[in-house]
Amino acid sequence: MKAMVYYGAGDIRFEERAKPAIIEPTDAVIRLTKTTICGTDLGIWKGKNPEIEQTVIQKAGKFNGRILGHEGIGIIEETGSGVKNFKKGDKVIISCVSRCGTCENCQKQLYAHCQNGGGWIMGYMIDGTQAEYVRTPFADNSLYRLPADLNEDVAVLLSDALPTAHEIGVQYGDVKPGDTVAIVGAGPVGMSCLLTAQLYSPSQIIMIDMDDNRLHMARELGATQIINSAKEDAVARVLALTNGRGVDCAMEAVGLSATWDICQRVVKEGGRLANVGVHGQSVNFELEKLWIKNLTITTGLVNANTTGMLLKTCCSGKLPMEKLATHHFHFNELEKAYDVFKHAADQKAMKVIIDY
Amino acid sequence: MKAMVYYGAGDIRFEERAKPAIIEPTDAVIRLTKTTICGTDLGIWKGKNPEIEQTVIQKAGKFNGRILGHEGIGIIEETGSGVKNFKKGDKVIISCVSRCGTCENCQKQLYAHCQNGGGWIMGYMIDGTQAEYVRTPFADNSLYRLPADLNEDVAVLLSDALPTAHEIGVQYGDVKPGDTVAIVGAGPVGMSCLLTAQLYSPSQIIMIDMDDNRLHMARELGATQIINSAKEDAVARVLALTNGRGVDCAMEAVGLSATWDICQRVVKEGGRLANVGVHGQSVNFELEKLWIKNLTITTGLVNANTTGMLLKTCCSGKLPMEKLATHHFHFNELEKAYDVFKHAADQKAMKVIIDY
Repeated sequence: MKAMVYYGAGDIRFEERAKPAIIEPTDAVIRLTKTTICGTDLGIWKGKNPEIEQTVIQKAGKFNGRILGHEGIGIIEETGSGVKNFKKGDKVIISCVSRCGTCENCQKQLYAHCQNGGGWIMGYMIDGTQAEYVRTPFADNSLYRLPADLNEDVAVLLSDALPTAHEIGVQYGDVKPGDTVAIVGAGPVGMSCLLTAQLYSPSQIIMIDMDDNRLHMARELGATQIINSAKEDAVARVLALTNGRGVDCAMEAVGLSATWDICQRVVKEGGRLANVGVHGQSVNFELEKLWIKNLTITTGLVNANTTGMLLKTCCSGKLPMEKLATHHFHFNELEKAYDVFKHAADQKAMKVIIDY
Repeated sequence: MKAMVYYGAGDIRFEERAKPAIIEPTDAVIRLTKTTICGTDLGIWKGKNPEIEQTVIQKAGKFNGRILGHEGIGIIEETGSGVKNFKKGDKVIISCVSRCGTCENCQKQLYAHCQNGGGWIMGYMIDGTQAEYVRTPFADNSLYRLPADLNEDVAVLLSDALPTAHEIGVQYGDVKPGDTVAIVGAGPVGMSCLLTAQLYSPSQIIMIDMDDNRLHMARELGATQIINSAKEDAVARVLALTNGRGVDCAMEAVGLSATWDICQRVVKEGGRLANVGVHGQSVNFELEKLWIKNLTITTGLVNANTTGMLLKTCCSGKLPMEKLATHHFHFNELEKAYDVFKHAADQKAMKVIIDY
């Protein structure tokens, strides 16, 4: 089968690989019908996650490449003997987080940190979804039946982008009716924060980015105000838009020091700062000003514990996620799709969908 | 009357001042019977809070000194016409946080950030308790009747140290039965964290400090393990004591970069880091490692919204706070008391109590 394989910083190859087989009785093998590319995949490509090859080299001495991708929908091709909830032919959404369901962390719904080989592993610690087939561990706990009435471009966003935004941005940020919210970063996850925040009826959602096209889209998707931080002082402007008070909740959806700084400077006393971005470096935390402010700051990898509720919400029409699917490519054009997504802002691309 | 007055960095004077009078109808004037010195007072003395004189100079052009202190118990001397709950002669505990009770923040129990001139103001934005008399604003909301059976050395700790530790350390840190806890800093607030954490039955409380005498006291007050971070690698030792997992909750009770670092390196996935310390400088936040860990980090100034529950707990004998009152001085010896508290660890002092 064809697959997009990571070999090390700057080196990914679209090449022929062996079709995966069942290893554990709780596995399923799925034939992909749709996948997508995540900012995290670009991060791996750039060399942000050398632990991928290091982990393999430590154990086996040699790294033979890792198939990328942790998002996708497809049709079950084969199930292990222990899989009870799904069978061959079922159409499913694959969660980016696998979970054993029995360890201490899984019993706390902290599935991101499953202690029995789950968590975020596809396209990271095991081969992923940017292929014709994928092996999914803990299939009973990690797959969702794909409803016939759900737009399939939306379904593929339920693998990661949507639950990440909802859980790590909106739920950790504790967005409540009437709240003022600032979201820094209008990429796919920031946009998903914008959409899922609206499920909780905040009074104000200020979207901050450096790209006018993305900000325009944010306006259409419900942002009450937009700020281009390349053109104006975002902190001063947020304060001006909130009677000098700052916001109840700031979400960091980029993963850079500069966007973190905007967030820590716009949260009002008693407020929340939800960090969603994946950071490659430490940041400066202004505790000399913030120790007194009764802030709550959260970090996290998605647990995918709200995927089921988001699926129902998408089906009910309350989450117009299809608007994020700006570009479509056939699986054979995956290299081209990477190229477009790598320059997403310039290409006016939000989420690129890969069809088979 | 005599009072300890701050004039600027490094300059405090024990001198004669005018007795305070009622200004607002909601005020009370109280004759102190006991006060104490807080680490924050030492911070002001050192110059950590130049906003004290700057605020006055901006408004009035000239700074005539500020009476220090935000802790104390006493007897009501006079009440304003609007005070309903208290009368002359009542023995009361003075909360370090004054609250109007009606603003947006007070209605959220965020009394620390009262928007009508409350919050932490005594010994900071208005004259404080290290005097023979003090004016307390919003007396109805900011005083507690002193029970006859309560040890008065304990009562004075209910002004600040005890609620600060309980609210900003233990409650924000969400200590639960069975949890593993690490407390960095065995000063009066860290010790109060240790005592109030035990109200929630954690399985392990690891106390970290650089002073053996304080660590010995922490053992006596319920720490299950102690670590002298001047003598051994505190992070490695906490991990060894928790099966390599780290703790559910770390409390920072010092206010330095080094102690913050210990905390951010010992919290396990899904855990909480409650910052209690007052910081004078920014810290390095290792988001490149911690973005993925589903942490909750909190900061804050005490709201004193649990003072009533702590008062009952002290009366029930479940909080042996009297053990922290290691030294006593007469009010006339306040300068000597400052000197001892300034070198508290060397003097084997924890909390110095000032009697009148």
